[in-house]
Amino acid sequence: MIRKTRLFTPGPTPLLPAAQFAMAAADIHHRTAEFRNLYRKVLADLKTFVGTRNDVLLLASSGTGAMEASVANLTSPGDRVLVLTAGKFGERWTGLAKAFGCDVEVVSVPYGQTFDLESVRKALKIETRAVLMQATESSTGVRHDVAGVARILKETGNDALLVVDGITGLGTTHLDMDGWGVDVLIGGSQKAVMIPPGLAYLAVSDRAWEAMEISLNPRYYFDLRKERKNAAKGESAYTPAVALIAALGAALDYIAGQAGGDLALGREQLVDNAETCAAMTRAAVQALGLRLFAPDAPAAALTAVLPPEGMDSGLIVKELRSRFAAIVTDGQGEMKGKLFRIAHIGLFDYMDTIAMIGALEQVASALKFPGFQFGQALTAAQKVFAAESGLQRRSSALAAHAESMTPAAASATTR
Amino acid sequence: MIRKTRLFTPGPTPLLPAAQFAMAAADIHHRTAEFRNLYRKVLADLKTFVGTRNDVLLLASSGTGAMEASVANLTSPGDRVLVLTAGKFGERWTGLAKAFGCDVEVVSVPYGQTFDLESVRKALKIETRAVLMQATESSTGVRHDVAGVARILKETGNDALLVVDGITGLGTTHLDMDGWGVDVLIGGSQKAVMIPPGLAYLAVSDRAWEAMEISLNPRYYFDLRKERKNAAKGESAYTPAVALIAALGAALDYIAGQAGGDLALGREQLVDNAETCAAMTRAAVQALGLRLFAPDAPAAALTAVLPPEGMDSGLIVKELRSRFAAIVTDGQGEMKGKLFRIAHIGLFDYMDTIAMIGALEQVASALKFPGFQFGQALTAAQKVFAAESGLQRRSSALAAHAESMTPAAASATTR
Repeated sequence: MIRKTRLFTPGPTPLLPAAQFAMAAADIHHRTAEFRNLYRKVLADLKTFVGTRNDVLLLASSGTGAMEASVANLTSPGDRVLVLTAGKFGERWTGLAKAFGCDVEVVSVPYGQTFDLESVRKALKIETRAVLMQATESSTGVRHDVAGVARILKETGNDALLVVDGITGLGTTHLDMDGWGVDVLIGGSQKAVMIPPGLAYLAVSDRAWEAMEISLNPRYYFDLRKERKNAAKGESAYTPAVALIAALGAALDYIAGQAGGDLALGREQLVDNAETCAAMTRAAVQALGLRLFAPDAPAAALTAVLPPEGMDSGLIVKELRSRFAAIVTDGQGEMKGKLFRIAHIGLFDYMDTIAMIGALEQVASALKFPGFQFGQALTAAQKVFAAESGLQRRSSALAAHAESMTPAAASATTR
Repeated sequence: MIRKTRLFTPGPTPLLPAAQFAMAAADIHHRTAEFRNLYRKVLADLKTFVGTRNDVLLLASSGTGAMEASVANLTSPGDRVLVLTAGKFGERWTGLAKAFGCDVEVVSVPYGQTFDLESVRKALKIETRAVLMQATESSTGVRHDVAGVARILKETGNDALLVVDGITGLGTTHLDMDGWGVDVLIGGSQKAVMIPPGLAYLAVSDRAWEAMEISLNPRYYFDLRKERKNAAKGESAYTPAVALIAALGAALDYIAGQAGGDLALGREQLVDNAETCAAMTRAAVQALGLRLFAPDAPAAALTAVLPPEGMDSGLIVKELRSRFAAIVTDGQGEMKGKLFRIAHIGLFDYMDTIAMIGALEQVASALKFPGFQFGQALTAAQKVFAAESGLQRRSSALAAHAESMTPAAASATTR
C-alpha cells in the first residue's frame, strides 16, 4: 500500500507547504534592501509569536547554539549557576555550563518527573548567576513549572537570570516571558514554527542585556550584542540562513492567520491545538492499557508512553515506521527501548492525530497487546475530541454573544 | 484547531510532492532536446502505466478533450454509435457524439447501477461504428464491466471500436486494454497520476488508427494522427503543458517505484491500494447505518454514500469541510443533496483513509445520525484493513517461499 512518510517526532516536525515554497523561492542576497525588509519583518513577527516586548534575535544554528549563546554571554568562569534537570536536555545545560567554567549546582529529579519547587527554593538561597531550565523536556514528555520557578526567584530575592529552553515549549505551552520575568527564552526552527532545522531564536530581557556587559566568557559567533546591533539595521552579524528565514516568515504569517487558510491561528491557538492532539493521544494510549511516562505533568509537546510489560518500545517504533511510514521516536539515552514518544508540536490537526492512533491500534493488534480490541483507542480519542470541540464551539458562541452585547468594544477590537 | 485542507474528491486528487517540485522546476523550452527527452520518457512511462503496447498520446486539455478527440477522429456524421450510460459522464458521451453528428443509440440504466450485458448484446446486433463507455462512473461510484462488453463485441462479431473513458478508472480498476481489445483508453492528469488538471492522455489501438483514415469529422487541435507523428519525434503538435508533463514524469517514477520512497508501487499495486481504501470506507459507512449508492458494483475510485433518511447530503459535505477541511463531493446533477462521494483515487494511504472515517464519525455525532456511537465506523474499517494487510503479508510470504524454492527463476527476475 502507499505509505506517505509522516513525522510525529518532537523535531523535526511536519513542514508547512507555504514555508517550503517560500524556502524554494528564496534566491536573494543577504546584504540587500530586499533581505533587510524580510529580516525586520521576521524579527518583529517572532516577537509577536514569542509574546514579548523584548528583542528577539535569530541565529544560524540549532537550538543548542542559542543555549550556548545564553551561557557564553551571561556567565563568567566560576559563576554559580543552577541547572534544573529532569532529562537529556536538562543534562545538556549542565554540560554547557561546565564547558564554560561555571560552578554548576544541579536540582535533578528522575526522568518522567518534574521538580519539587521547594528544592528549587532551597537551592536559590545562595547568590546565583543564572537558573537554566527547560519549559518542556523533550526526552520525557514532562512540562515544567516555569511560572513557579520565576515566582520563587522573586520571592527569594535571588537576582539570578532565568534562562528557559523553550525549544519544544514555545507553541505547545503557555509562556508569559514578560509577565513572569523570564530573562532568556530560546526557540528552534524545527519545532512549532513548522520549518526545517537550522535556525534558533532567543528573546532577551533588559536585565540580561545588562548582564552581558560584565560577562567574561569568550564569544564571537554567538556574541548577542553584535547580533543585536546588526538586527537594528535589519542585518545579521554573519551570513544568515536566508532560505530558512524566508520559510520562517511564511510560517509566522500562517500562524498569525495572515496567509489565507480557513483558520486564524495565533500563538495561543497553536498551544490549544497541541493540547487537543495531546489529550486525544493520552486518552488513546491509556485505553490501550498503556501507561504514560509522565502522568503528573504531561507536556502537550509530546506524549511519552511505556510499552506493554516486557516489550521493547523500539518494536512499536519500528512497526509504525515499516507498516505506515509514521515516524515516532524511541526513548533517548537510558530510556532507549523503555518508552516511545508521539509529538504534537506545530502542524498537526485532528486528522493527523486520529490517523496516528489508528496506526497504533493496527500495531497493537499485530504485536498482540494484552486485551487489545480494535476501536479501544480510537473511540477514547474520538470522545475527547468531541468534548473539546464542543467546549470550543460553546466558548466561541459565548464570545460572539458577548461581542454582540457590547458593540463599542467589539468594533474597537476589529482590525 | 489547525485544519489542513485535504481533497477526498474524485479529481482533482492529492498532489504528489515530488511532482509539485518537478512542476515548479520546469523552466524549459518545448522545442529543445531537453524537452524531447522528457517527453519521450513520459510517453514511454505512460504506456507502462496504462499497461499497453499501443501508442499513448498526451493532450493539453482536460479529459473531456480526449473524449472529444476520440469521437472527432473515429466517427463520421451519421455513424451509429452506442453509448452505455449510467450517470453524468455517460451522458457526456451522448452529448459529444450528437455534437459530431452521430446517430446515437443509448443503453442506459438508472444512476447507481451498471448495465445488463444482455441489453448491450442486443444493441450490438446492428452494425456500429463505436461503443462509448466509462470504466467507472465518477458521478455514482459504479464500476462497469469493460471486459464483459469487449467479450460481447467479439462474440457478436460486431467490429465497433471500443472507446473507454478510464479517467477515474485508470489506476483504480484493472484494465487490460490489449488483452480485452479496447481500442481507445482515456485518462486524465488530475486522477490516479497525482498531478493537477490540464493534461489528458489516451492509448490508441492499431484498429483505431486505421479507422481515423476514413473518418470525415472535422478536427484540428485534437487531430491524433498529427500528434502521433510529432510524438515520434519527441514533440507535441501544439505548445505542450510543459510543467504538467514534468510533474507527470515525476509521478510516473513514483508509481513505478523508481523515485525512492519506501514502497515500489506499480500500476497493479496502485489499484490494490484504492481497493483497500474503498473497502475500509464501505465497511465504515455501512457500520454507521448508511447505505451505499452502488452496492452491486462499487468502484474503488470512489464510494458514493446515501445520507440518513431525510437528511440533505450537502450538510455532511459542509460539516466535513468546515470542521476538518476534508473536501468530499455532493451528488452531481439530479443526485445533488442525495448522496456524498469519498474518493480513493491516487495518493491515499491508510492514514488518510482512517482519518477521513474519524472525521465522518465526528460529523455523524454532531448531526445526530440515528443510533450513532463513537467507534462504530472506525472499528469496522480497522478490521477490514487488518484482514487485508494480513492477506497481503501472507501472499508476500508465499511469494517469497515460492521464490526460495526455485532459485533459478528467482535469480532470473532479480534486476
